[in-house]
Amino acid sequence: MTQSPEPALVDGATRLYCIVGDPIVQLRSPRVYTERFRAAGLNAILVPFHVLPAKFDATMRGVMALANLDGIIITVPYKARVIPCADRLLPTGRGIGAINAMRRERDGTWSGDNFDGRGLVRGLGEEGLSVADARVMLIGAGGAGSAVAFALAEAGAAAITLFDIDGARAASLAARVSEPYPRCAAQVDPPAAAGHDVLVNATPTGMAPDDGLPAPLGPLDPGLLVIDVITKPELTPLIRHARSCGCRTVGGRAMLEGQAEEVMGFFGLLP
Amino acid sequence: MTQSPEPALVDGATRLYCIVGDPIVQLRSPRVYTERFRAAGLNAILVPFHVLPAKFDATMRGVMALANLDGIIITVPYKARVIPCADRLLPTGRGIGAINAMRRERDGTWSGDNFDGRGLVRGLGEEGLSVADARVMLIGAGGAGSAVAFALAEAGAAAITLFDIDGARAASLAARVSEPYPRCAAQVDPPAAAGHDVLVNATPTGMAPDDGLPAPLGPLDPGLLVIDVITKPELTPLIRHARSCGCRTVGGRAMLEGQAEEVMGFFGLLP
Repeated sequence: MTQSPEPALVDGATRLYCIVGDPIVQLRSPRVYTERFRAAGLNAILVPFHVLPAKFDATMRGVMALANLDGIIITVPYKARVIPCADRLLPTGRGIGAINAMRRERDGTWSGDNFDGRGLVRGLGEEGLSVADARVMLIGAGGAGSAVAFALAEAGAAAITLFDIDGARAASLAARVSEPYPRCAAQVDPPAAAGHDVLVNATPTGMAPDDGLPAPLGPLDPGLLVIDVITKPELTPLIRHARSCGCRTVGGRAMLEGQAEEVMGFFGLLP
Repeated sequence: MTQSPEPALVDGATRLYCIVGDPIVQLRSPRVYTERFRAAGLNAILVPFHVLPAKFDATMRGVMALANLDGIIITVPYKARVIPCADRLLPTGRGIGAINAMRRERDGTWSGDNFDGRGLVRGLGEEGLSVADARVMLIGAGGAGSAVAFALAEAGAAAITLFDIDGARAASLAARVSEPYPRCAAQVDPPAAAGHDVLVNATPTGMAPDDGLPAPLGPLDPGLLVIDVITKPELTPLIRHARSCGCRTVGGRAMLEGQAEEVMGFFGLLP
């Protein structure tokens, strides 16, 4: 039996990917992606780049000029600020107004797009769940909510009811989603579970220990699929409440894992 | 028996070091340093950064702004060009006019220095050899020759006879070495082994298959220590000739390995 030699952790020919954010020490992506690269037999690594807000523009200019850097993941707080760095925005990223990945094209230019919401849809698919033709109640129309709304519409949701404590933000998102996806009925209404197949929390409510539900929801129909984009804690008040009502639940981890797969595809690294 | 878990290849807390050059695919440093970091229990990695000549300044500005980057190794063709990027040059780097390493100081500024020649001196030391009080014949006064001359003078060589086909270059180096090291007699003379304890080739002659000796040297005294800074091939015409004369020889690999140790120390990573 022969044993294939362990490849070098990194050598001169290693292709680079990076994640830019502030702070970065808590990020899981460097490990998750690098393990995926190696599992796929690629001599590639995803490195954390700690970019400071005061030096953002100059840092990005330098990083994007590195000739062996093929892709960039963008995380908090730069998903909107990075937009002018891209030479080209794909429609979803442009509609959301925020991107979480850029890739270098063959001509050397950079294209950006957003895979946050698509990660959720893929994560659902891997659990055998579909949002095609679903009527969705989406709470939160900020960065996460925008990404989720576009991905749900792209995946064929029949209707999305949007709520945000900032009513104008909800209305703006409804309008932005309706333009590319006219067949998805996007409207603004108070939060309510009744009449919906899927309920999504895309607010931060549920992260802090004392948080309650993101909205007063009352008892939930056991046929409702309840999704919380929060990753920590895994069992948010909404997830607990939904389970106590007999609902199927999906947490933020499925979204994150689906997202890595989507971004790998965008980078051209999937078979 | 417990087994310590294999650390992640890279995670959000990994500290970054890089090597900048053009081209970079052939570089051994990423592997060599990263293995040293891991052997020392450090969560750190040395990544290759392919910097293009046309984008050098902007790229360096961005790279040096990365808050989790602690050190930079500089290789061909940037060892002289990088000098204006450093906030501070240490005396050896300034004297040589080229640096191969920069570190970020606690105050955020960058200091640069040159360890190419010191690597040779350390490599010699690890083989039990010393250049203290030695009379050295040094052929080649370019980048490598300058680094070697400063390191030999720093290590206590009694005299360095310099030869370069560009006589002015040899004279300039002799003057630059004499200033900080007045006790080391640096002079320019035609290449000759007689009267010397050590002979160093710091020219590229010996890299190409058809190359001969870097200078017409004739038979060598078996007591002469012969050093060739060329790493590929390992057995240069000079090394072969010296061995046939019964001389002790040291090749470029010892210099490279000693250099990594010197740079690790400069980065503050040695115990």
